[in-house]
Amino acid sequence: MSGGLPVILKGVAQVIFQANPWTGLAFLIALFVGGWRFGLFGLLGTVVATLTAYLLGVSWADRVALGLEGFSGTLTGIGLVLYLDARWITVLLVVFGAVAGSVLTSALNVLLKPYGLPASTAPFCVITTVMVVGGPAFGRVWNRHAGAAPPSVKAPGIEMDWTHLWQGTLSGVGQVMFQGQWYVGLIFLVGLVIAGWRLGLVALMSSLAGLLTGWLLGAQAADLGAGLYGYNSVLTGIALFGTFVVATPVSAVYALIGVVAAAGFTAGVGNLLTVTGGHTLTWPFVLVTWAFLAAVPMFSRLEYA
Amino acid sequence: MSGGLPVILKGVAQVIFQANPWTGLAFLIALFVGGWRFGLFGLLGTVVATLTAYLLGVSWADRVALGLEGFSGTLTGIGLVLYLDARWITVLLVVFGAVAGSVLTSALNVLLKPYGLPASTAPFCVITTVMVVGGPAFGRVWNRHAGAAPPSVKAPGIEMDWTHLWQGTLSGVGQVMFQGQWYVGLIFLVGLVIAGWRLGLVALMSSLAGLLTGWLLGAQAADLGAGLYGYNSVLTGIALFGTFVVATPVSAVYALIGVVAAAGFTAGVGNLLTVTGGHTLTWPFVLVTWAFLAAVPMFSRLEYA
Amino acid sequence: MSGGLPVILKGVAQVIFQANPWTGLAFLIALFVGGWRFGLFGLLGTVVATLTAYLLGVSWADRVALGLEGFSGTLTGIGLVLYLDARWITVLLVVFGAVAGSVLTSALNVLLKPYGLPASTAPFCVITTVMVVGGPAFGRVWNRHAGAAPPSVKAPGIEMDWTHLWQGTLSGVGQVMFQGQWYVGLIFLVGLVIAGWRLGLVALMSSLAGLLTGWLLGAQAADLGAGLYGYNSVLTGIALFGTFVVATPVSAVYALIGVVAAAGFTAGVGNLLTVTGGHTLTWPFVLVTWAFLAAVPMFSRLEYA
Repeated sequence: MSGGLPVILKGVAQVIFQANPWTGLAFLIALFVGGWRFGLFGLLGTVVATLTAYLLGVSWADRVALGLEGFSGTLTGIGLVLYLDARWITVLLVVFGAVAGSVLTSALNVLLKPYGLPASTAPFCVITTVMVVGGPAFGRVWNRHAGAAPPSVKAPGIEMDWTHLWQGTLSGVGQVMFQGQWYVGLIFLVGLVIAGWRLGLVALMSSLAGLLTGWLLGAQAADLGAGLYGYNSVLTGIALFGTFVVATPVSAVYALIGVVAAAGFTAGVGNLLTVTGGHTLTWPFVLVTWAFLAAVPMFSRLEYA
Repeated sequence: MSGGLPVILKGVAQVIFQANPWTGLAFLIALFVGGWRFGLFGLLGTVVATLTAYLLGVSWADRVALGLEGFSGTLTGIGLVLYLDARWITVLLVVFGAVAGSVLTSALNVLLKPYGLPASTAPFCVITTVMVVGGPAFGRVWNRHAGAAPPSVKAPGIEMDWTHLWQGTLSGVGQVMFQGQWYVGLIFLVGLVIAGWRLGLVALMSSLAGLLTGWLLGAQAADLGAGLYGYNSVLTGIALFGTFVVATPVSAVYALIGVVAAAGFTAGVGNLLTVTGGHTLTWPFVLVTWAFLAAVPMFSRLEYA
Repeated sequence: MSGGLPVILKGVAQVIFQANPWTGLAFLIALFVGGWRFGLFGLLGTVVATLTAYLLGVSWADRVALGLEGFSGTLTGIGLVLYLDARWITVLLVVFGAVAGSVLTSALNVLLKPYGLPASTAPFCVITTVMVVGGPAFGRVWNRHAGAAPPSVKAPGIEMDWTHLWQGTLSGVGQVMFQGQWYVGLIFLVGLVIAGWRLGLVALMSSLAGLLTGWLLGAQAADLGAGLYGYNSVLTGIALFGTFVVATPVSAVYALIGVVAAAGFTAGVGNLLTVTGGHTLTWPFVLVTWAFLAAVPMFSRLEYA
């Protein structure tokens, strides 16, 4: 593929660190299967964010062409339509959010450069948190704190069964883009396998490890089954094992610690943000991965990729 | 003018980035018109902050003489008397807050130096937030969360009329120092025009853009009329267009995005802080401007001033 | 002493910046006098944190041998057993928290290196806050926000008597490791005097200054008597006077400002965190000390030790 389309597809694929347009295509299909609004708003965010970076003069070869300026917009589109519904004002907020997120991506790249850390999905987390928390102040946006209650509200209890386990492991992959159905997670997994079979394996095992962490601590079974304890672990696992840190037996253990931390952290971040009407998003992944990546130079047995 | 007085007046003027004593004089007059306590406590904060920096040995030529060590104290004085009332304990808190704010100014200057970012009004925001949030724990400070309810509490509704529009645009300039009357805003505007007519124009247009952003999103009309959606935009507009970024057609669009972001961000920050009894202050300006300034090196079409 | 034991004891001593095993022994005795669970869980955290750093390859001579990789684990052990009780799940959380805290210590060392700031007890504060705030989401951890109500809940009032004053000054030293009895504080003081009589004096005077700050502002007498306004001041005083800043008459005044700021900040941090079920821990010390240390290069009359 050539031209503008592959850049947009790579943008979608970069949500999980891949510059592969076919992976991006699979992710996009998964989004549309999850619901037309996720596909459409995700695409809108990706296009606007990429275009903003291009117009402001961000390096084409180093950043834009690799899709690195698109993925925060993808997530902002999905996140805002999920929490604020598919309405005209949401279109406006996604466009502005993608523009502001593009500026924030560049800002974080400058601020994190001395430490070699990636901005990751932090711009999406900031923009979406600000908009969802601020929304209720505005009559035309929302007149109450944005919804999307976790599944455990309808089906409380901490007894996990086999269905929770296998569906939750697959959903954990899909929740990276806030999709809770196991078959949508499966399509995401296919997209990852296109980029490399080992990626798919790491994603699946990280999702399972996150789910088991939640189960061990006594999280709600319905939330585990929807993949809510898996997606931050998936992102953390892939980031720390092979993507930013060289894959070795020691780094596998290191990544596993990070994966468990991201799952455990999920509840803490959720409780902190619920007070103000915010959502967990991918904050646990961002914060845990920054800490675990920043620490690498102190550890003689680990090495940056 | 020569001697210590112009340094203090420049300190007041630096609230809006000006090292002009006559501008500072106009601002000080505006504060006294807004209420004697704002003038007096603002002056107290400016003097104590400047003196602290001088005694600890901050560079005279680079910092103290330009008023750069005073303006956080000015705002701390105004903010504390607004939220904690004119009492003896407030005098004590302003003195200590100005001293601590002076240390924080130096700390931020060191921390932000690698990125070339200004400390801006962040020290004031930190000190005032800490004191207002912590206040209710202390029997001699305050026995409830500090007040200053927004005007919309008494006059709810999102229907904006002509009076809201023109008064709100002027008040937006005055709210930079937490003054809600349109004629006080007008005196601040005169102070800005003394430093340069273009500054006045940028301030007015930024205030209007902030107000219209709030209106578009459906903010409360009474709050718009009091300038509550304008002041962070005024500061952001002046910072991003001409002060820290070279003024060009591209940077005008860039500044406008920042101005809109600061206005929209106002509600998010407000909701976050209200939970704990804090206030919006100039947090939206500080955070938006840091992000938009930090990003500049990534954008080939923008240049630091 | 030689072998692994002194490294562990130095780890305990580093809670108050000392690499002296005998000081660590005194601190450990104080913990066991405060309650067997504090001694045992503190020891567990120290061992796990030190071992993690060793296994990941942190420099032995520069860090591990000096106890610098242990003290965050000590505090994590004490903090978690205090807020989550002595149960098997707490053992698991302390082990994992010490491992994650070890990674965070290294991360902060890298991030703060350009500024020469110490990670200090920040890793402990982050890990414990996350776990205590997140705890209620997990059926096997805790089913409500973790407790430990301040003494003022049972005995309200701001009238301080002589007993509050002398017991509070000693308890302020003990509260550095969350021990509220005056005689436990006394044993900590003995540990400090072993490392140097001036250290003991600075600790005592800082504790008193913190207590008097709280009293002046009208804090609850029972909380003052339990040392709750003293421990952040003790840590700040020792850090700013002699440990990281050269001890001079000017730095004595500077440290005193920091000591007062840490005490005043205690209430603000407490109110912020109470909303989400968090606790004050040593956040005021960490944040105030970072600010006061970062500012030093701007002040020609102060010098790093």
